[in-house]
Amino acid sequence: MTARSIPAERYEHRLRQVQQELPGQDASALLVGVGADLRWLTGYNATPMERLTMLILPAEGRATLVVPRLEVPAAETSSAVAAKFVDLVSWQETEDPFELVAELLQVSKSRPEIQIGALGGAWGRLGGLLVSDRLWATFLLRIQAVVPDAAFGLVSAVLSPLRAIKDDDEVALLRRAAHAADRVIQSVARGPLVGRSEVDVAREVRERLVAEGHDEAGFGIVASGPNSASPHHEPSERVIQAGEPIVLDIGGTIEGYSSDITRTLWVTGDAGTAPDNEFRRLYDVLQHSQAEGVGTVKVGVGCEEVDAAARRIIEAAGFGPNFIHRTGHGIGLEVHEDPYLVEGNEEPLAAGHAFSVEPGIYLEAKYGARIEDIVVCRDSGADVLNEAPRDLLVVRG
Amino acid sequence: MTARSIPAERYEHRLRQVQQELPGQDASALLVGVGADLRWLTGYNATPMERLTMLILPAEGRATLVVPRLEVPAAETSSAVAAKFVDLVSWQETEDPFELVAELLQVSKSRPEIQIGALGGAWGRLGGLLVSDRLWATFLLRIQAVVPDAAFGLVSAVLSPLRAIKDDDEVALLRRAAHAADRVIQSVARGPLVGRSEVDVAREVRERLVAEGHDEAGFGIVASGPNSASPHHEPSERVIQAGEPIVLDIGGTIEGYSSDITRTLWVTGDAGTAPDNEFRRLYDVLQHSQAEGVGTVKVGVGCEEVDAAARRIIEAAGFGPNFIHRTGHGIGLEVHEDPYLVEGNEEPLAAGHAFSVEPGIYLEAKYGARIEDIVVCRDSGADVLNEAPRDLLVVRG
Repeated sequence: MTARSIPAERYEHRLRQVQQELPGQDASALLVGVGADLRWLTGYNATPMERLTMLILPAEGRATLVVPRLEVPAAETSSAVAAKFVDLVSWQETEDPFELVAELLQVSKSRPEIQIGALGGAWGRLGGLLVSDRLWATFLLRIQAVVPDAAFGLVSAVLSPLRAIKDDDEVALLRRAAHAADRVIQSVARGPLVGRSEVDVAREVRERLVAEGHDEAGFGIVASGPNSASPHHEPSERVIQAGEPIVLDIGGTIEGYSSDITRTLWVTGDAGTAPDNEFRRLYDVLQHSQAEGVGTVKVGVGCEEVDAAARRIIEAAGFGPNFIHRTGHGIGLEVHEDPYLVEGNEEPLAAGHAFSVEPGIYLEAKYGARIEDIVVCRDSGADVLNEAPRDLLVVRG
Repeated sequence: MTARSIPAERYEHRLRQVQQELPGQDASALLVGVGADLRWLTGYNATPMERLTMLILPAEGRATLVVPRLEVPAAETSSAVAAKFVDLVSWQETEDPFELVAELLQVSKSRPEIQIGALGGAWGRLGGLLVSDRLWATFLLRIQAVVPDAAFGLVSAVLSPLRAIKDDDEVALLRRAAHAADRVIQSVARGPLVGRSEVDVAREVRERLVAEGHDEAGFGIVASGPNSASPHHEPSERVIQAGEPIVLDIGGTIEGYSSDITRTLWVTGDAGTAPDNEFRRLYDVLQHSQAEGVGTVKVGVGCEEVDAAARRIIEAAGFGPNFIHRTGHGIGLEVHEDPYLVEGNEEPLAAGHAFSVEPGIYLEAKYGARIEDIVVCRDSGADVLNEAPRDLLVVRG
């Protein structure tokens, strides 16, 4: 077994915490498929597949994890199952798992000590069953068919606010991942870069993400020259030239927790082709904006205020239309999760919120830049997890 | 741009092929989210994310791809969009994409030349809208809310049979991936293995999958000693010992198309601890079973007959209860897709069906073995893509 940083008791606590929230959501049970929600609730890092795996968590009583028989050995070793906080039920290759889910819900309906369906026959009411946000349609439509009277909602209504607040063990994992990603940026910046294709550099990034301590390489955006003007550029066969910028946006996971850092380099080549004045100015504005966003972070500040603070600097410099995305996203067991730093999100930041602050400026078809750090919100301000320097990295390449 | 093996015209053909099937399914339109279906229909390898990306393909007329503004540059370079077979519509960070989807469907309803809603006002009837099987609940529930009168079905009803038949370009990609995976098995088998942890070997597997030509490492099951008795064992910190088996089940993707191969090794260590007689016998039975499964493959044979043929050999040897999974799964843009070789699936095999043949025998808590090849069904029999030897690999380790 890999050493685990989240103690088993934490899952019992989370399961109870969620159960307490269900009546307030008018919900009888949670139906959670494979993914970050399941991992957060049970520690089970299940593989997404066409065979149904589903945690059924009623508003009261014990939770049941339904797994295909093949997955029993893996499920048994997950923290919450091994510690007996969750019961395990398996189904055979030729059985119908949706009938099994329906049965488990029926059983609960007929047992008053378990509250499914007991909220005034809540099946017909909104929020009767909350399904995980990323549950596949192939599962949801079948569950809707076997429990036709139920109303369906999303577990994020309950789970997102809880998952968004990271405890110390989670912050420690995010910090380890952030530092590993910092080291990758620094070693890739040492080059060589000029003359290599973006996909080749992306391959190096992925290898280094693992070599520096991630369990998995997640993503490696390598956007050179005009491609740097596209925020979500997919690495291509384009060969990196001297005298242009490269945006590196990379991340991986440690025990499921993600890193996500962006730094912008300028490769001069042997001739020493320095950044032009427009790029220097653009970058200065961007760096100021990013620092302003980070500086705005503290408990009680609205998410959209961080976005507004970063955006104001960019707008004042005349680059407003060139900052074409939100300022940041929460991060944890998913690379993108609550809270989102976007106009319209008035939610106040709370201690333990972990998220990116990543303004960007993009001059279409020419070039662009972005700076991204992961920060954790504290009473006193932002705890910035990344340590790689934020100045424009001017390298020979 | 990375060189592409599937010509752009193929996507136009596929879009038309699917449209022709919709009336027969009583369906007005397809709503396809990020994933293999979208890639198969358009060549767009979109990143799964919380922002909605969705192809809307009406029964007649042009298809529209709805993407977040950030993803426009990536979407524009996808084959079907670049070749103008599909229209692109983007939405801004502060807009509601579900309203946009509803509008696009409404527009179509009011334009008789596009058949959405024209099938006798089909919204209220089963199959009115077919959503991709892996569309997330967070999207499906919102779409159900904005089109409340529609009946929903799964696109697999139309797409699975079409996607299951691989054309020559697809088979060529599967073969390249299979050969790359063959090479990984052979280099890992050269060792050293004894004294290393499973996760360490799994890391090597993932690196070699890419080094041998995959675009992405997909998975690397390394199950040693008693762990080999668990078909879907997650690589652990267990250290590999001399005198035990290792099941390697590995795969990656080339242009989205997967490899998936399983071989079983026995590591003797320096003392030369050979396989015991029980394991030898188990393996002989397994190899016979796998060959029998492969030998049964040809056009017109039922999927379940391949399963039955492989299973019969194992049952006759008394290991029936130890073969706890189906014999195989289709493979293509997904590692697991139609056709499934499982009891109850009477579907006849067709030319171009690509799938695994992978019986296994598992003695609980002791050890196990599995042999897996990817094959393509032809009139004359199975075209076996993998070339790595199937004999028990007895290595020093």
